[in-house]
Formats: sequence, C-alpha cells, structure tokens
Amino acid sequence: MKALVYNGANSLALEERPKPSPAKATDAVVKLTYSTICGTDLHITKGDVPTCKPGTILGHEGVGIIEDVGAGVGSFKKGDSVLISCISACGTCEYCRKGMTSHCVSGGWVLGNKIDGTQAEFVRIPNAESSLYKIPKGVDPKAMVMLSDILPTGFECGVLNGKVEPGSSVVIVGSGPVGLAALITAQLYSPSLLIMVDTDENRLKVAKQFGAHYTTTPDKAEGLVKELTDSKGCDTVIEAVGVPAAFHQCQELVAPGGTIANVGVHGVKADIYLEKLWDRNISITTRLVDATTTPMLLKLLAAHNLPAERLITHSFRFADMLNAYSTFKAAAENKALKVIIEM
Amino acid sequence: MKALVYNGANSLALEERPKPSPAKATDAVVKLTYSTICGTDLHITKGDVPTCKPGTILGHEGVGIIEDVGAGVGSFKKGDSVLISCISACGTCEYCRKGMTSHCVSGGWVLGNKIDGTQAEFVRIPNAESSLYKIPKGVDPKAMVMLSDILPTGFECGVLNGKVEPGSSVVIVGSGPVGLAALITAQLYSPSLLIMVDTDENRLKVAKQFGAHYTTTPDKAEGLVKELTDSKGCDTVIEAVGVPAAFHQCQELVAPGGTIANVGVHGVKADIYLEKLWDRNISITTRLVDATTTPMLLKLLAAHNLPAERLITHSFRFADMLNAYSTFKAAAENKALKVIIEM
Repeated sequence: MKALVYNGANSLALEERPKPSPAKATDAVVKLTYSTICGTDLHITKGDVPTCKPGTILGHEGVGIIEDVGAGVGSFKKGDSVLISCISACGTCEYCRKGMTSHCVSGGWVLGNKIDGTQAEFVRIPNAESSLYKIPKGVDPKAMVMLSDILPTGFECGVLNGKVEPGSSVVIVGSGPVGLAALITAQLYSPSLLIMVDTDENRLKVAKQFGAHYTTTPDKAEGLVKELTDSKGCDTVIEAVGVPAAFHQCQELVAPGGTIANVGVHGVKADIYLEKLWDRNISITTRLVDATTTPMLLKLLAAHNLPAERLITHSFRFADMLNAYSTFKAAAENKALKVIIEM
Repeated sequence: MKALVYNGANSLALEERPKPSPAKATDAVVKLTYSTICGTDLHITKGDVPTCKPGTILGHEGVGIIEDVGAGVGSFKKGDSVLISCISACGTCEYCRKGMTSHCVSGGWVLGNKIDGTQAEFVRIPNAESSLYKIPKGVDPKAMVMLSDILPTGFECGVLNGKVEPGSSVVIVGSGPVGLAALITAQLYSPSLLIMVDTDENRLKVAKQFGAHYTTTPDKAEGLVKELTDSKGCDTVIEAVGVPAAFHQCQELVAPGGTIANVGVHGVKADIYLEKLWDRNISITTRLVDATTTPMLLKLLAAHNLPAERLITHSFRFADMLNAYSTFKAAAENKALKVIIEM
C-alpha cells in the first residue's frame, strides 16, 4: 500500500509499505476513504515530537471501511463505515476508567506518533471497540473527519475545560482550525459574548462567518475586551495558538474568577504572572483531548447542528499528499483551514 | 485607643488613635479581645502591598465584643461575641452573589489594607451583617481567631480548589501556618496520601503531629512523590509558600489529571512549563479566600473536629505587639506558627 512516511526532520515521502493486519485480537484494520493533516503533524515534521520516530506513517484522523477485525472485536465487521478517533483507548486502565483516555496506559495518542497512522491506504487500529465509531447513514464522511481530532479538541480542551456556560463572555486567542472548532462548539452553550483574536484578517473574517460577535488583532485585544466587559475581562479565555506570547496575552484577558483553557501545543515554557494572578481566583487548564465527547458530537453532526464541513477549505488526492502538506504549512497564506485527503 | 500602625516600609508603631464609630448604617464597631499577625502583614511591612497606605492600622483577623452598631445592623447588638472575617462582603454585588466575596466591589480584603484593621483596641467593620459571625458558647475564642483567615484560606484556596477527595494523593509544599491549615482541612475529605514539604525540620515535625503521612525537604520531594505514587505524581499539589521555586516544584509533583492549587502570595512572576504540561490534563488555580466556608468551619470547631488552637504557639499582650512582630518575622527560628495577641 502507499503511505506518507516521516523520515526525520523535514523529510516526508510517499512510500510503498506492507498492508497491515490485526496484530492482536482487539485490533481492526481500516481501509481509509478520507484523511487529513493536523497542526500536530507539522510539529512532527519539524522534528519537535520525540515520541514519533523516523519511519512512522503519519496521521491520526480519518474515516474508512472496516477491512478486517481481530477475534475479540464484536462491534464491527468487514464493510462497516467507521470514524477513527485520534485517541486509542483500552477502556480498562485506571485513566480510561476515569474518562481520561488521552492518558490510556496502552493507548492515548499513538496513531501517527508511536505507531503507524492514517495517512495511508490502510491502518491498524488497536483497541478497536473503544477507538472507532460507526458512521450513521446520511452523514457526510468528509465532515466526519473533523470529529477525529479537531472538534473534540476544541470542545473538550477549550469549551469544557474553559467552563463556557449560558451568558459567559468568551475570548479565543487564535482563529486557526482548532480555535474555530472551539468557536463552533462554544455556541452549544449560548455564551453572551464571543471574541476571536488572530493576526490574520482572513481567519478573522472566517471567524465572523462561524459566529464570532467581535474579531480583533492581538495588539487591540486587551482594549476591546476591556471595553466589552466593563473592564472585567472574559470568563473564558481559550489559548489556541501554542506560543508564549499568546499564553501571556490570555492572562491579560481573563476576568476574576475566570478560566484560561490552554488548547495550543507548546514547545517551550512561558511566564505566569502570579504576582497579578495569585488573588484573582482564576484557573488555568491544560488537556490532551480524551475524545470522550465524540459520540455526542457525532449525534450533533448527524442532526446537522454542527457546521463541521465548513472547516474544510482544500481537497487533495492522496497521490498529491506532499502538495497537501505544502499548502497546509502555509495555511494562512493559502487561506487554508483543514485540507481533506481523498484516498 | 492604642493601635498598631503601618508608617511605610519597615516602620511600625503602637500609636494613640481615635476610637472608631459606625460611619454607615451597615457598620459595626468591635472591641477586640484577641487578634493575630498574618504572613500578609509581613508583606505589608516590607512595603510589598501598594494598596495599604502608610498610616493604616494593620490586621484582618480577630475576635471581640460588639461595641456599637449602625441603624441597619439587625443581627448583632452590643455585647455579642463575634468572629471578624478577613473578608468584608456587601452580599449584594455581582461577585458576592456568586460567592466570590473576595472580589466584592465595595469590600473584599479591606481590613488592615485599604481601611483600618484589627490590631487595635477597636475596629470598624463595614457590611457587618455579612462579615461577622456570632461565636457559639463553649468555643475557645483564641481558636476562633484561626477562622478569620488562615483556616478558610488553607481550606478554600488549597483543599477545595485542589479538589481533594476521598482517596486522593496530596502534597503540600510549605509547612507554615497556611500549609498546616490546608493539611488539617484536607483530612476532612479522607485523602489516602498526605505529604508535607518544607526546608524546616521543626515544621515538618509539626506536620507529622497534624496528620501528615510523610514529610520531606524540597530536594527530596520529587523522589519521594514518585516512589509513593508509582511515578504518577499527586492528584492535588498545594503551593503554600509564594516563591517561584516552590511553584516550579509543584509542576514536577502533579499527576496527569491533577491540580496545582496556589495558596501562596506571590510578588514576582514564575515559569510555567507548558512544553511538559500542555498535554497533562492539569489545572492550576489561584484564589483569594472568599470565607464562604467560615460558617461550616465554625460548626466543625464547635464540634471539636478542628484542632485550630494547636496552630497557636505564642501569646503576647497587645503592649508587646512589636515583639510579637519580631517573633513572627523569624517564625521558623522561633518555632512559631500563629502568635495570639491578647488585647
């Protein structure tokens, strides 16, 4: 089969690889129909993710058709259309039992990281029973790909951790795909104020289309938030960038009693202004998506209550995978959000 | 009346001041019977707290007898024995209505900060109805002084924010009075593991007497926590020091899914190791005590379920107030926890 292989920093290639088969009774093999590229894949290609060794097939998102299952898989059979979650969960370890599947001792984020991933014609999915979801009839499979990672990430790490509730004031720093995923899912809780911050004018325009009440560039964010919140700051501040400057700005935007929900993947430390924050009754949260809300998001998508497909701006054939990466790397310049890969 | 007055950095004096009277209908005047000194008072005397202007009478803790009440005070009358909370709350502003009285727009921590405090023969208490508590019969008034600030602070900022629950593993960095207050109140929730960290051997000995399962110095804390938690770290990490090094250490001690509850008063920024923490599903919380749990703690104290009086190591007459400050400043050296001031 063809597969997109990470061969070390700044070295990607479409290569011929053996088709996988179930290695354990709990495995399934899925024939991909659609995949996509994640910002995290770009981190890997820069050599930023030491757990991903050269030679690994990348990708942790996708939908496809069950090709084969191990003897212990009862819920899926050959021919079923399935969503692949970015989180593989055994369902029985201490972390899985408390719903923190991201830290599953034999799973978590392993696809396209510690084991071969979904940017290939076929992928082996460990712990298939708790890592795959049947796709309901009538749901656009391309939209479903947005449920592998980006929508649960924006929702769980941003909206749920950020405690968005009816009437909340919310500011999201970063209007890339994951910031927009947070923007979309924040609206499930009817906040009274939704502000998006980004340096890119096109992304702010898109944010408006996705329901942001106000948009602003980082240099004007503090002034706007003060103006709109009677100088209090926002109840929920979502960091969807992953650089110290964005995290620092979040600390200026949070109201007393508010929450800074970090979604961004950070490569370096940042400052925490405890001399200002120690008495402000705030929370700062971090989270790797647990994908525990995937079934709920799937129901919303099936009910046409989640504009997931609008996150897709570009489409590529798998043979053009390297072009897809180039386009996604220069996402702002190319006005790209998510790129869909047709296998 | 005699009062302990802050006259600018490193300048304290016992001075003669006019006896206060109710300035508003909602005020009460209390004749102090016992007061104490807080670590925060030491911060003020160093000039670290810009909201406290020279000329202010210090102190935000104490018990006493109602001397006079304004026309709008119905719950207290002259002669009542009362506990003074460190937090003055109007009870009606946006913050008070959501239980975040620490940020009351006309109150919060004002005593011995923005207005004259409790290290005096008499003190004026604004919003008396929601800032004073009747002392039940049979309760030691000296023990009650520990309910003005230190016990609700350790409990709310450390234990509640830190989400201590039955079976939790808890490590408290800092075994001074507020760390011990967290240690005492953490036991209300039956954690399975309670570790205290401090540089001072005597304070660790005291921590053992107060129920710590293990004690350690900071250099050995990480090793001990790993050994006792199967390398996972603790569910709750309480920062009860207020310096960057302690806050940094907390980040090494927290388990995936755990909480770092900051209690310490910080004067400078610290580092946050987001490159390690972004995917660990942790929370960091800050809080100024709201004193919303004071009535509950008062019930526990009345039921003899809170060893508050054991936090008191030294006793001074008010005339010896400057000696009391000297003793408390060199607390570790003097084996001092809380010093009680008899008025």
